[in-house]
Amino acid sequence: MQFPETFLNLSGERFVVHYQVRAADATEARARVQGICLEQTVEVPETLLAHDDLREKIVGRPELLAETAPGTYEAAISYAIETTAFEFTQFLNVIFGNTAMQQGIRVLRLDVPDSLLRHFPGPRFGQAGLRRLVGIDSRPLLCTALKPMGLGAENMARLAHQIALGGVDIIKEDHGLTDQPFARFSERVARCAEAIRRANDHTGDRCLYVPNITAPSDQLFARAAAAKQLGAGGVMVAPGLAGWDAIRRLAADDDFALPIFSHPAWLGTLVLGPDHGLTHHVVFGQLPRLAGADATIFVNYGGRFPFSQQDCRGIVQGATSPLGAYPPIFPVPAGGMTLADLPAMSRFYGAEVIFLIAGGLYAAGPDLAANARQFRTRVESL
Amino acid sequence: MQFPETFLNLSGERFVVHYQVRAADATEARARVQGICLEQTVEVPETLLAHDDLREKIVGRPELLAETAPGTYEAAISYAIETTAFEFTQFLNVIFGNTAMQQGIRVLRLDVPDSLLRHFPGPRFGQAGLRRLVGIDSRPLLCTALKPMGLGAENMARLAHQIALGGVDIIKEDHGLTDQPFARFSERVARCAEAIRRANDHTGDRCLYVPNITAPSDQLFARAAAAKQLGAGGVMVAPGLAGWDAIRRLAADDDFALPIFSHPAWLGTLVLGPDHGLTHHVVFGQLPRLAGADATIFVNYGGRFPFSQQDCRGIVQGATSPLGAYPPIFPVPAGGMTLADLPAMSRFYGAEVIFLIAGGLYAAGPDLAANARQFRTRVESL
Repeated sequence: MQFPETFLNLSGERFVVHYQVRAADATEARARVQGICLEQTVEVPETLLAHDDLREKIVGRPELLAETAPGTYEAAISYAIETTAFEFTQFLNVIFGNTAMQQGIRVLRLDVPDSLLRHFPGPRFGQAGLRRLVGIDSRPLLCTALKPMGLGAENMARLAHQIALGGVDIIKEDHGLTDQPFARFSERVARCAEAIRRANDHTGDRCLYVPNITAPSDQLFARAAAAKQLGAGGVMVAPGLAGWDAIRRLAADDDFALPIFSHPAWLGTLVLGPDHGLTHHVVFGQLPRLAGADATIFVNYGGRFPFSQQDCRGIVQGATSPLGAYPPIFPVPAGGMTLADLPAMSRFYGAEVIFLIAGGLYAAGPDLAANARQFRTRVESL
Repeated sequence: MQFPETFLNLSGERFVVHYQVRAADATEARARVQGICLEQTVEVPETLLAHDDLREKIVGRPELLAETAPGTYEAAISYAIETTAFEFTQFLNVIFGNTAMQQGIRVLRLDVPDSLLRHFPGPRFGQAGLRRLVGIDSRPLLCTALKPMGLGAENMARLAHQIALGGVDIIKEDHGLTDQPFARFSERVARCAEAIRRANDHTGDRCLYVPNITAPSDQLFARAAAAKQLGAGGVMVAPGLAGWDAIRRLAADDDFALPIFSHPAWLGTLVLGPDHGLTHHVVFGQLPRLAGADATIFVNYGGRFPFSQQDCRGIVQGATSPLGAYPPIFPVPAGGMTLADLPAMSRFYGAEVIFLIAGGLYAAGPDLAANARQFRTRVESL
């Protein structure tokens, strides 16, 4: 059979996904590209499509195919913006839904036109907005993590107080702190917010408290509202656990209106296969920003995770290079860094960065407030 | 510093994650296992923990470590069930949160005790419940997909009517059909449900209509309710796009109470790396069932995706082997199969399976109802 003839009145606006495709030769590469064009849209063999608007307007359109190394091709495929239904979930699906199950096809980067960008909220604060909130104009921002899971709310608040006294700009929570019986969300957030407020009154700083609100779908948004009401200055969400759209929805909420930190938990396998998946640039740079995060946490090169300098450079580009009217967002390298790494990281990342040092801060000496002061002094003297 | 001494009153109940770990020797293997135990819980170096309850009860506990091949180890690590806060999102995080960013560590399978299972709803229907709904006792169930994206609701309903007339048990929608301007969700679901109801009145069958409700977080549950109200007999969710917890929440909802089909979009990279990520058994077998899905769609071996027979066998085991009081759920192999593949698939999967043939059904001949009848006849005569 063939599907009935279809007439579609679309805007003509398209977004572009750049894929890396492995193939033995140009013929196979073209066939794989055509396979992506169908798989990501109509999901039927081409022979079932009449020569009509389904074929012309809905099926992905190959815009470019070039061999970049022997057996490696770069393909650009454009899709009608209407295929996304202007939903972030379906936008992700058109980019890579079923093709995520293919070997030898990797998403390199996305070109998203204003006509699609304006359907999503974008980052509400971005780098400049976050800087305004913490009152720091030009140096890298300092961040650490409240931990560990298992500690009671009162002890957690004591640690938060010391860190804030020491002059750290942003205190986020470990992404594993949710609503465990030994430190319930409401009590923990209330006590920590209060402890940080007290420290701010003392120092005159504006240390921002960023609790983790990654949670079941029927609790996440209530936790975001509760966090704000209890005095949090931002929130952290792990989109690999809660879904990317949780960030989009929070970013769009004018009543919420706090900065959002994206956490990389469960996103690792998206980038680990060199021949499949997506680049670090897309997963930790472009996607958090497109979803509306103001800062993207990822693991730094040279730590206990296998990210390279090139991976991290790609993330920074995705987080900061021009993207319609969306502001640049903060890259937040983390994971196994110590205060001794700061000079090298400063050379690599420049000033538009948030340095997240957690384990390395706790381990730097017996007095947590002194460790935090040392962190601050070192960054100020970079 | 060291963290303050902590006293915890936990149940002593633990769940177990089996990991495959690559290491040069037993010493390195032990170190990597210890790294997982810390990373997935307290996220701090062990030296910062006093000899107290944090170390004894919160940090993951190595239960077993054995070399299974040169350089390959299998490790069992148990975690206190309280670390999950009894949230599905945090349960996922303890299993594999940050460790998903590591090379050479792969989640093989999960052992989940009743003490944790009872905090999640589990599959409401399972295989037996789904069979009751469609009124088919013992043969494999037939399923196809409504498509393609771009078709209007009226034409989509015509296709649905023909397929149902032909005797297919379950008609699910393509996961790319959401709420596009050319076929709005409400109109599409209303028309298709009505068309299938009309066909059922004619045939006396109970063809089940399963629309795709994968959607932004503020619309998914409203679409589920609307689908039910409009006459859908089940729904499909892609947890890779919407988050796994969307399934858990739907499965727990007594007002909703329809079967849930899990779709594999965006989950591919979790399984593709042979040395990292998770097994097919976990991703397409255990996790959908733990989340509460009644059927798990995955790509069959030998189709256009690189899944092997062993991968598919692992999925069936995860979907069906004993798991507390949870019923077995249906494996739904799909992706590039034709009617000619049915005998071999029947030998491989047995009778407790849903065969999902979509493109291959449309392409089987000029008359869609006749193609569907052929599908039915072939399965009945297996």
